Amino acid sequence: MPKVSVRFLPMGLSVEVEKGASIIEAAQKGGVYINNLCGGQGVCGECKVLLKSGKVEGLARSRELLGEEEVEKGYVLACQTIPEEDVTVEVPLEATGEGAQIMLESEEEAQKDLGKPLVQKLFLELFPPTADDNIADAERVFRELRKKLGWRGYKLELDCLKGLPYILRENDWKVTSVLLKEFEEYRILCIEPGNTTHKNLGLAVDVGTTTVVAQLVDLWSKKIIDVEGKLNSQGSYGEDVISRLIYACSKGGIEPLQSSVVKDINELIETLCGRNTIKPEEIWSVVAAGNTTMSHLLLGIHPCAIRLDPYVPAAYSYPIPKAREVGIRVNPHAPLVVVPSVASYVGGDIVAGVLACKIYEREGVSALIDIGTNGEIVLGNKDWLVCCSASAGPAFEGGGISCGMRATQGAIEKVKIEGSDVVVSTIGNQRPKGICGSGLIDAIYELMKNRIIGKDGKFDRSRNDRRLTYEDDIPQYILVFGEESATNRPIVITETDIDSLIKSKGAVFAALKCLIDYVGLSFEFIEDLFVAGGFGNYIDPKKAIGIGLLPDIPIEKIKYVGNTSLKGARLCLMSHLEFERALNISRSMTNIELSVYPPFMNEYVAALFLPHTEMRLFPSVNF
Amino acid sequence: MPKVSVRFLPMGLSVEVEKGASIIEAAQKGGVYINNLCGGQGVCGECKVLLKSGKVEGLARSRELLGEEEVEKGYVLACQTIPEEDVTVEVPLEATGEGAQIMLESEEEAQKDLGKPLVQKLFLELFPPTADDNIADAERVFRELRKKLGWRGYKLELDCLKGLPYILRENDWKVTSVLLKEFEEYRILCIEPGNTTHKNLGLAVDVGTTTVVAQLVDLWSKKIIDVEGKLNSQGSYGEDVISRLIYACSKGGIEPLQSSVVKDINELIETLCGRNTIKPEEIWSVVAAGNTTMSHLLLGIHPCAIRLDPYVPAAYSYPIPKAREVGIRVNPHAPLVVVPSVASYVGGDIVAGVLACKIYEREGVSALIDIGTNGEIVLGNKDWLVCCSASAGPAFEGGGISCGMRATQGAIEKVKIEGSDVVVSTIGNQRPKGICGSGLIDAIYELMKNRIIGKDGKFDRSRNDRRLTYEDDIPQYILVFGEESATNRPIVITETDIDSLIKSKGAVFAALKCLIDYVGLSFEFIEDLFVAGGFGNYIDPKKAIGIGLLPDIPIEKIKYVGNTSLKGARLCLMSHLEFERALNISRSMTNIELSVYPPFMNEYVAALFLPHTEMRLFPSVNF
Repeated sequence: MPKVSVRFLPMGLSVEVEKGASIIEAAQKGGVYINNLCGGQGVCGECKVLLKSGKVEGLARSRELLGEEEVEKGYVLACQTIPEEDVTVEVPLEATGEGAQIMLESEEEAQKDLGKPLVQKLFLELFPPTADDNIADAERVFRELRKKLGWRGYKLELDCLKGLPYILRENDWKVTSVLLKEFEEYRILCIEPGNTTHKNLGLAVDVGTTTVVAQLVDLWSKKIIDVEGKLNSQGSYGEDVISRLIYACSKGGIEPLQSSVVKDINELIETLCGRNTIKPEEIWSVVAAGNTTMSHLLLGIHPCAIRLDPYVPAAYSYPIPKAREVGIRVNPHAPLVVVPSVASYVGGDIVAGVLACKIYEREGVSALIDIGTNGEIVLGNKDWLVCCSASAGPAFEGGGISCGMRATQGAIEKVKIEGSDVVVSTIGNQRPKGICGSGLIDAIYELMKNRIIGKDGKFDRSRNDRRLTYEDDIPQYILVFGEESATNRPIVITETDIDSLIKSKGAVFAALKCLIDYVGLSFEFIEDLFVAGGFGNYIDPKKAIGIGLLPDIPIEKIKYVGNTSLKGARLCLMSHLEFERALNISRSMTNIELSVYPPFMNEYVAALFLPHTEMRLFPSVNF
Repeated sequence: MPKVSVRFLPMGLSVEVEKGASIIEAAQKGGVYINNLCGGQGVCGECKVLLKSGKVEGLARSRELLGEEEVEKGYVLACQTIPEEDVTVEVPLEATGEGAQIMLESEEEAQKDLGKPLVQKLFLELFPPTADDNIADAERVFRELRKKLGWRGYKLELDCLKGLPYILRENDWKVTSVLLKEFEEYRILCIEPGNTTHKNLGLAVDVGTTTVVAQLVDLWSKKIIDVEGKLNSQGSYGEDVISRLIYACSKGGIEPLQSSVVKDINELIETLCGRNTIKPEEIWSVVAAGNTTMSHLLLGIHPCAIRLDPYVPAAYSYPIPKAREVGIRVNPHAPLVVVPSVASYVGGDIVAGVLACKIYEREGVSALIDIGTNGEIVLGNKDWLVCCSASAGPAFEGGGISCGMRATQGAIEKVKIEGSDVVVSTIGNQRPKGICGSGLIDAIYELMKNRIIGKDGKFDRSRNDRRLTYEDDIPQYILVFGEESATNRPIVITETDIDSLIKSKGAVFAALKCLIDYVGLSFEFIEDLFVAGGFGNYIDPKKAIGIGLLPDIPIEKIKYVGNTSLKGARLCLMSHLEFERALNISRSMTNIELSVYPPFMNEYVAALFLPHTEMRLFPSVNF
């Protein structure tokens, strides 16, 4: 299939797709978030982007929805527009999420020299040996590398040395060295025949507790080729990190958990390779980021002290084995690099996030919040970094909520209440099946705003509302009546659900408050608040502030940054400088262990209100 | 079995043997050369040693052969004396070879601190983690190592990290780290439960083209436990290096040659472990020394450019794999360290030899000659080292000689001619089967001395001697008549045999002469001439000078040093400083490639006489 490349501004990210794919498909492949309420049916008009260059198909539909004038200016609907050649589009601010911006590399940053990829290929044309110059083959390779890369340590692996004399002589002394930089030393992973520098693919993997996402990157052209995700099959051994740790340490051991996630990665590789007619052997490097437990399990490292007081991981930075040793089916010489972690509950995914958001280089203070079962929070600037982790519980992922579900097809993700009318929209525009975390936030905000619940999260029982019903005298609010739902059962929100969410948001907010207090600042000093994770993309910042999940700062400071674990892993894959930076971040970041940090409990209790007990912290929330 | 220890002076070497073994058995086990012409039958009286301390059995036999007076002085026959407890004996000069000294570590040198073994064990008592000190387990280990070994790089291997949290907690934070020092960095090979520092065995291996010898060393007590040798089974693929290279590169590939030698090493390990009730898993390090081809084949490295002009090996210094990766059955974490080489025909065995003879630290100039199929020669002092290799042909090993054989049981090793009487002695005092290299040197010297042959190596056909016979008009000299030989066939020396040996000795001498000339010196500057290899032990230096194999220097300067390849390997095993020295030697030694060094051919032609065309080079040879 012929391919075309779509370049997204201001991110400066190029994504290659098969000809015939729409711009929104390219955006999804590259992890560029563009609003797409109607699910690509060309009806909502939300996915408007500015076509900067290149020929496209499907302008008629854009004209129909956007009007002639907009199309004259260059706007097109991403979901209806099919590039006929390489195109460049600009994603306008309003298309990147409601009022919040997607923060990706800017054009300028993308062009900034990242240095060489972590696994670098270098073409060598050697002089054949003569009687006067008959140094050993390995020395000849080192000598040439020293000329090109400087006087450093070069280490040739035995596997590579074994066939070296043959490869050099069979290929007229023209070969490609495959190098992994480890601090001041280069590990020569392989010497390949001829010039293969243009064939250097890498795999960035986000090993999440719930999902595993892999992105295939062409390190030569610096383009993302494709991305694919799936549920982490470790799920069958326990849904969250703690139950996996219990399984690993007291039941079946580490091996089944390790093989599950390795199998997942192999399946993703198979899909990515199949779809792009690539052989797994062409993948020369794998960089994985995950929380500390996921990182341990991926490498088969005993994780059991992680969950025992005082919460000690086996290591922060990990040895670099061959991916094949772990069972990952890529090139036999390809290393598996795991992004280093900071503490038992602040993992490589967060280090990757700091990397992706470039918190470590900013003058001003910024914060990164990654919300999931655990809320991990980082605060810092170019001079210091502090972090902590708070157990948020499963509510944000729909867990423990009466009609809760994950953010998949049919989940209510947006709620609007006016009087006793409720309008919901679901993922994929399907009949509603249940409610996911972002929907729950929306719903609670709307319930607050309409004074159906109070600051304590309790229903106003005096209210006369056909949706406010009681089961065994416990009040619940019907969002969707049985006849409208996909399951024919009503979708409700109970006081217990609200209570769960309040606890979750309270833990996250209290954690951030502790960090801010710890460094002696206040929220107004935060210049950028990065919200990471798939979850973040769907929540309305105004509502997140409204319920007291996020601090009450100007909305334009809140930036949804998507999967920064994957993005940080990709940065490491693309640049050994970024990987070295990740090691530095993991070493220099201060972790506050909240379980032994006395102020935390006070902050937590104070945050168990909507939005908070101290209303002066939320001046903009006024209902 | 109870053990006793025999300490040999002046070498300062302790050898442990089972109670009941004789002193000569202990000497053989430890590689201490003591004259033993009768093969331990207590008849020749040559193995006289001075008993310095300890109770022994078997004094009666010593009295019988040495006389009461000698025994009063403390002399005993090594072959008849059985230590009843730990003993110390001094080996007198005259017992260490005719007129030449065995050079082994002196008492003083043995006590000199060699630094830590290459694979070092260090006991760590760690503080358990607390809420205030909850760094990762690996960091806790590094922190303690930094306290003990300084601020260096510490690298924990994945295999070791996997079970670390478990091992630390199950053993109350008291563990032993097993470390391999690689320059400024330590590789942590394993963390063992409890204190196992006293359990650190190592294996030194001399991988010779003909024989493989392995020595088991207790690196804790710094004692040699046992030694064992066997023929290199690669022999079935070709007797010499060149035929093995041809096999590896054009016939069956490298694999069968690698497995052969690995099988040999495993058999030696099995024997050594069985005999000393040791488990192979207790061996934590293996250091092997061999010529460049043997080193390549042991590691499975493509050796084919070694035999092609301009003679290029794949590498000088080798990667350090786990011994198990190569197939050697020792502890799964034990590294296989191969002593680095200098050039295609100056290998790790020679670097080990330079190490063992300490040429690199002497003020004065000394030379090392290792005589085999190839003669490798090193010349140097603490400031410089030059080396070369000359193809000597197989004559020194009994190859291509009409009645030639290896130096095994029944081989004539000494010859005395008086008139037409010939007295021969054989290895093991058996009926003669053939003649080995040292016997041939003796024979030719005696033929010269008795003027049966001339300076050109041709028989004096005018001589009337019942031993000088003709076959097809080609003269030959009968050393042993058919009725006296083990095979019932006469053992003879032909003109062709003499010619072969002249070529061999001519090549070795010419090579040494080239080195001496290259550095602008003359033979009188040589302070010590070390003769290495099993072969060396048997040759009479006066006769080696007489035929022009060795230069005409005072006999006391000639020192038989035995298997310096094994000894150098053992030094590396026992001390990372020695291994680093080996790396330095391999990098700094200048190799003269004689095949492209014009003066060599002239020197060679000039040396094709007995002893030489230039008689002024051999003033002491006057017959």
